[in-house]
Amino acid sequence: MLPDGAIEVLDHGFVRLDDAMADDLSVVNGARVSFARRKEEMDESDAGLVRFLMRDRHGTPFEHNSFRFHVRAPIFIAREWFRHRVGSFNEFSMRYARATDDFYVPEPEDVRTQVGKPGAYSFDPVTPEIAETTRDELTAVYETAYATYERLVELGVARELARCAIPVGAYTEFYWTVNARALMNFISLRAAETAQREIRRYAEACEHFFAERMPVTHAAFVDAGRVAP
Amino acid sequence: MLPDGAIEVLDHGFVRLDDAMADDLSVVNGARVSFARRKEEMDESDAGLVRFLMRDRHGTPFEHNSFRFHVRAPIFIAREWFRHRVGSFNEFSMRYARATDDFYVPEPEDVRTQVGKPGAYSFDPVTPEIAETTRDELTAVYETAYATYERLVELGVARELARCAIPVGAYTEFYWTVNARALMNFISLRAAETAQREIRRYAEACEHFFAERMPVTHAAFVDAGRVAP
Amino acid sequence: MLPDGAIEVLDHGFVRLDDAMADDLSVVNGARVSFARRKEEMDESDAGLVRFLMRDRHGTPFEHNSFRFHVRAPIFIAREWFRHRVGSFNEFSMRYARATDDFYVPEPEDVRTQVGKPGAYSFDPVTPEIAETTRDELTAVYETAYATYERLVELGVARELARCAIPVGAYTEFYWTVNARALMNFISLRAAETAQREIRRYAEACEHFFAERMPVTHAAFVDAGRVAP
Amino acid sequence: MLPDGAIEVLDHGFVRLDDAMADDLSVVNGARVSFARRKEEMDESDAGLVRFLMRDRHGTPFEHNSFRFHVRAPIFIAREWFRHRVGSFNEFSMRYARATDDFYVPEPEDVRTQVGKPGAYSFDPVTPEIAETTRDELTAVYETAYATYERLVELGVARELARCAIPVGAYTEFYWTVNARALMNFISLRAAETAQREIRRYAEACEHFFAERMPVTHAAFVDAGRVAP
Repeated sequence: MLPDGAIEVLDHGFVRLDDAMADDLSVVNGARVSFARRKEEMDESDAGLVRFLMRDRHGTPFEHNSFRFHVRAPIFIAREWFRHRVGSFNEFSMRYARATDDFYVPEPEDVRTQVGKPGAYSFDPVTPEIAETTRDELTAVYETAYATYERLVELGVARELARCAIPVGAYTEFYWTVNARALMNFISLRAAETAQREIRRYAEACEHFFAERMPVTHAAFVDAGRVAP
Repeated sequence: MLPDGAIEVLDHGFVRLDDAMADDLSVVNGARVSFARRKEEMDESDAGLVRFLMRDRHGTPFEHNSFRFHVRAPIFIAREWFRHRVGSFNEFSMRYARATDDFYVPEPEDVRTQVGKPGAYSFDPVTPEIAETTRDELTAVYETAYATYERLVELGVARELARCAIPVGAYTEFYWTVNARALMNFISLRAAETAQREIRRYAEACEHFFAERMPVTHAAFVDAGRVAP
Repeated sequence: MLPDGAIEVLDHGFVRLDDAMADDLSVVNGARVSFARRKEEMDESDAGLVRFLMRDRHGTPFEHNSFRFHVRAPIFIAREWFRHRVGSFNEFSMRYARATDDFYVPEPEDVRTQVGKPGAYSFDPVTPEIAETTRDELTAVYETAYATYERLVELGVARELARCAIPVGAYTEFYWTVNARALMNFISLRAAETAQREIRRYAEACEHFFAERMPVTHAAFVDAGRVAP
Repeated sequence: MLPDGAIEVLDHGFVRLDDAMADDLSVVNGARVSFARRKEEMDESDAGLVRFLMRDRHGTPFEHNSFRFHVRAPIFIAREWFRHRVGSFNEFSMRYARATDDFYVPEPEDVRTQVGKPGAYSFDPVTPEIAETTRDELTAVYETAYATYERLVELGVARELARCAIPVGAYTEFYWTVNARALMNFISLRAAETAQREIRRYAEACEHFFAERMPVTHAAFVDAGRVAP
């Protein structure tokens, strides 16, 4: 069930903004402290300052804010996500809790083939038959794996060991707390064309919340070619 | 002039909580996501969970929050502060702006002598005469230094060069954004007996705001001997 | 095949020290720069200094060194490992390369059952029959999953999608570059009784290399109760 | 006195490479582990790989190395340097040790005036008279300040308090351990035209050692417009 205010992503996932301390003014005040100045409200010239900071890659003023995301995503996506070291994570544990039986099965139109060389792949659709086979094969292996997992747990095998059977298509869940600078870095890499389609959808959902809370900063980020400062 | 809501520290300094996204519930939810559980409100058992996490040094659930402090402090204190790498800083710049003429002169009762060996100093008061001499000597050197600075700037010398004359007793100003885990680390080191008295006062002011926003976490921190998880 | 100088861990894994810049003298010089002093060789008093720094948790002098490990481990272990944010990782990619068909099957004596509550589990052996069933079940699910993976790749499905089928018991491979302070933190958490048995073996292998390169620091770490400074 | 192998910077400073674990091969192997491949020696195609990683901003393979620098620099430069959070510092302490009496006095040709607006300054030379006055004024204020410091220490005032009198032109000394990725970030910002002339000289000295140890990586960095990956 989709939590309130969450954006649905993939077949069983979501991104929810749990809380935030974030506005464009904090960027401006972070920069203006260089001159011991401080504002209560933004005006036009401040938007120009934000664009200047972004373009000239003065990154630190973009760090005085915080987004706490609650995310549900397949393990193979979480693995890419957790490579981002500036930020905080807490995740569902298959040592402590029983694995969920939600697994990622791509929509037919998302089943794809790769063309080209590593680092420069492009992706083409497959035939409807291959798409359907892929979905069936994945569903089957997930069921087999989960049945194995359940039998092992039933036998008394420690969960932390039984989890070996669980495919990386299984859903996991985590909190991620991050500032706008690190978030823009994440978006620039993970909402990019070179990113895997599945994580792009998550990055786009994060970007939606970011744009909502820090519209001037987001606009400056887009203007600067989506390169993080 | 002391900004609204700020705690006065030393003769011209302050700590102000500019904004925060911080409550004890975020710690609990950060931990409970291990079991894919989530609460809207804290109860008694959650306080126990917070104490357990603190004692057993499960640090990450304490990272899903954020405090943005606005601080005015002498440079020699800012230098100790900025050694804390987990967190974000923006500071007043003597490259861009004219140096302030506020300098730290200790109250007579804060003038002290050191006893013992490095790493294990203790500090004793000095005589009232030595205290007064110290205050006079510092005041004199600050005035000389600032007059030099002003003459150089007057002559057209670049501020970034003229600042060489400014003593580390001069006040600077900065924003510091930090999560509770890094903040507890700061407090455990900088509000400790081994810390310099001046930075202790700042750390105590930060601790005041921390205790106010996350009382259960703060109590657990104190119970655990003020060691950060 | 086990690379030269590597320590074998689990059924298909290893830890190899690829390179290091690490000796106890760097700790001493890191600390003595506080006094603008520097030594070419360690003596007895320096060992005392290292113990003092460790005990009083002066952590930074332990950061002026570097260990580059090359590791092969199951994905569920890599996932715990990559939570350690201070340090650098590069990992085998199932987007770019074909998944390996090595999977973790525990030795019979490592199949175990869990007793007690989350956060305070203990583990008991299972009967030989259950151990054998577990090994058979895991082997079977790995074979099924890998066969599915191969069929999908054969059909032209992108590797990044086909990998969904791969269980977290599959081996991956990575480089990890880390300083002694972060390494001690890793060892203190991952070679501890509360850590999962499989990652403990990896942490112990890392500790072996650490002790070899920085014997005085390692001895001080053990004396201080294996708490990282 | 200049230590062996150090590069002299400013009037009393230096940069010395204390130790390093750094070669271009580590970049290549960091990247090739994506394919579970590993090389003992670099060839032509590897140089192309390094250029590709740099250009496309795949930063992590540049982190599997380490440079330990020993630096002597004025405090106002150290303050800019210590803002770089990825890396490790230990510094001379005026709490524990007696302040040095070396202070930065710019060469006549380095005395300059600023033109333009904050963030977009340019600098012009001053007349020989102003240059000489500046040197004299700085020398005088340094002498006054140090004499005050000495009198206070003589009176028994704690060093940590007496240091308030010391101008930021005073020299300090530190170790800095950093990987190539963070080093390139430092160089890109601090050897740039917008950086203060004094820290540029330090950054250039660091760059010299970097280019010596990792020539292929350095060349790729220069080709990529000196933007860190």
